[in-house]
Amino acid sequence: MKRNLLLISNSTNAGEEYLGWCQDLIKDFCLRHNVKDVLFIPYAGVSMGYDVYEQKVKKVFKTLGLNLYSIHKEKDPEEAVKNAKCIAVGGGNTFHLAYELYQNKIMKAIANRAKKGMPYMGWSAGSNIAGPTIKTTNDMPIIEPKSFNCMNLVPFQINPHYTDFFDPKHGGETRDDRLGEFIKIEPNVWVAGIREATALSLEKGNLKLIGRNNKMKVFRGDREAKEYTLKDDINFLMQ
Amino acid sequence: MKRNLLLISNSTNAGEEYLGWCQDLIKDFCLRHNVKDVLFIPYAGVSMGYDVYEQKVKKVFKTLGLNLYSIHKEKDPEEAVKNAKCIAVGGGNTFHLAYELYQNKIMKAIANRAKKGMPYMGWSAGSNIAGPTIKTTNDMPIIEPKSFNCMNLVPFQINPHYTDFFDPKHGGETRDDRLGEFIKIEPNVWVAGIREATALSLEKGNLKLIGRNNKMKVFRGDREAKEYTLKDDINFLMQ
Repeated sequence: MKRNLLLISNSTNAGEEYLGWCQDLIKDFCLRHNVKDVLFIPYAGVSMGYDVYEQKVKKVFKTLGLNLYSIHKEKDPEEAVKNAKCIAVGGGNTFHLAYELYQNKIMKAIANRAKKGMPYMGWSAGSNIAGPTIKTTNDMPIIEPKSFNCMNLVPFQINPHYTDFFDPKHGGETRDDRLGEFIKIEPNVWVAGIREATALSLEKGNLKLIGRNNKMKVFRGDREAKEYTLKDDINFLMQ
Repeated sequence: MKRNLLLISNSTNAGEEYLGWCQDLIKDFCLRHNVKDVLFIPYAGVSMGYDVYEQKVKKVFKTLGLNLYSIHKEKDPEEAVKNAKCIAVGGGNTFHLAYELYQNKIMKAIANRAKKGMPYMGWSAGSNIAGPTIKTTNDMPIIEPKSFNCMNLVPFQINPHYTDFFDPKHGGETRDDRLGEFIKIEPNVWVAGIREATALSLEKGNLKLIGRNNKMKVFRGDREAKEYTLKDDINFLMQ
């Protein structure tokens, strides 16, 4: 398994700076893989526009000694993917991200590069699409992508921003209710609910939970949901 | 405008009985339209299965003097829709509902009947699909429907279970953030955020907010979001 992945749950912890909590993870990941230049995919950004999104991320990456450039300014997105040394896919709306990746014909191209070892990082929506489909996103389906299928860089579904939170005054579904529906429909697929301030790292064929929060919750149709900690071996998710 | 619609935000208020808060609305709606028999569409129900779902709703409708029968037991769903005196579409997962309506080839058939005046009621997912698309659902995309397009019984988007709630400890999007993304993509479409314990009623060409909660919030890309009360004229949404 040649893949080098950093799949971050969330860009921003409540009350902290943008990409604040995960700066060191990003820096170390790039350092380990000798990355200087990072191709940024801003397609999940809806409300702020791609230019603003690029600047926002560029500013943080610059402090880490990294040069970030965005695909929306590239003449030929496919060529840009082909030549990238590392790709970072930002968060926002997962449907919009998938829609644009298909529109620009680079969903498969990015997947192919990442499968051959090119360092790939994403946060929130950018982590979500590393799984087989967008079927466990929390986002609103504001636009219809060509397909729900994604990059399949890991064989399990990811639910970023995973939370146990339950509002006793609200009748709508909890996160566990929603994921429970997914595993009812696809009982043989693992789902990794990664809480805020955590990430998944896949390097040298080893999948790890990293970050500040000690737990992740794993769901599957044929068993009870279970918590795993930073110290646990979670490589069963890769099978 | 011949349509007779009762579009309920939520089946269950927290701490109350199933369909408790809206029983009177359903009863009065059926009484006004001389409805005795109701064809139930349980397709949004994922976790409990259609048989259990049917029984759950049947029990409540029986106390209202209504005979409920479910489409999943009908040999020919298209024929059942054609012969129905009234259709009720239950809540659950909107993607699963749309998927099944397309699979069973009755999305258009129900829309056609409702457009010609057959009383239609829905709650949660069942209200959502009365709009042009499922693009403002809160549900998880656990299954990929043939299309995001729905019945267009009203020309505006519905967001059921609308809530202003904001968890200061969570970095994920608020409901307003999500709806803000939708109106950025489709700036000329109205979105009605209907809170729990409210419903929309369309009869004799008159759209009204009804229920226990006094407010709804309306969104559109080219203006500020605005609250409307039970007393306000909201027929601009129909244009």
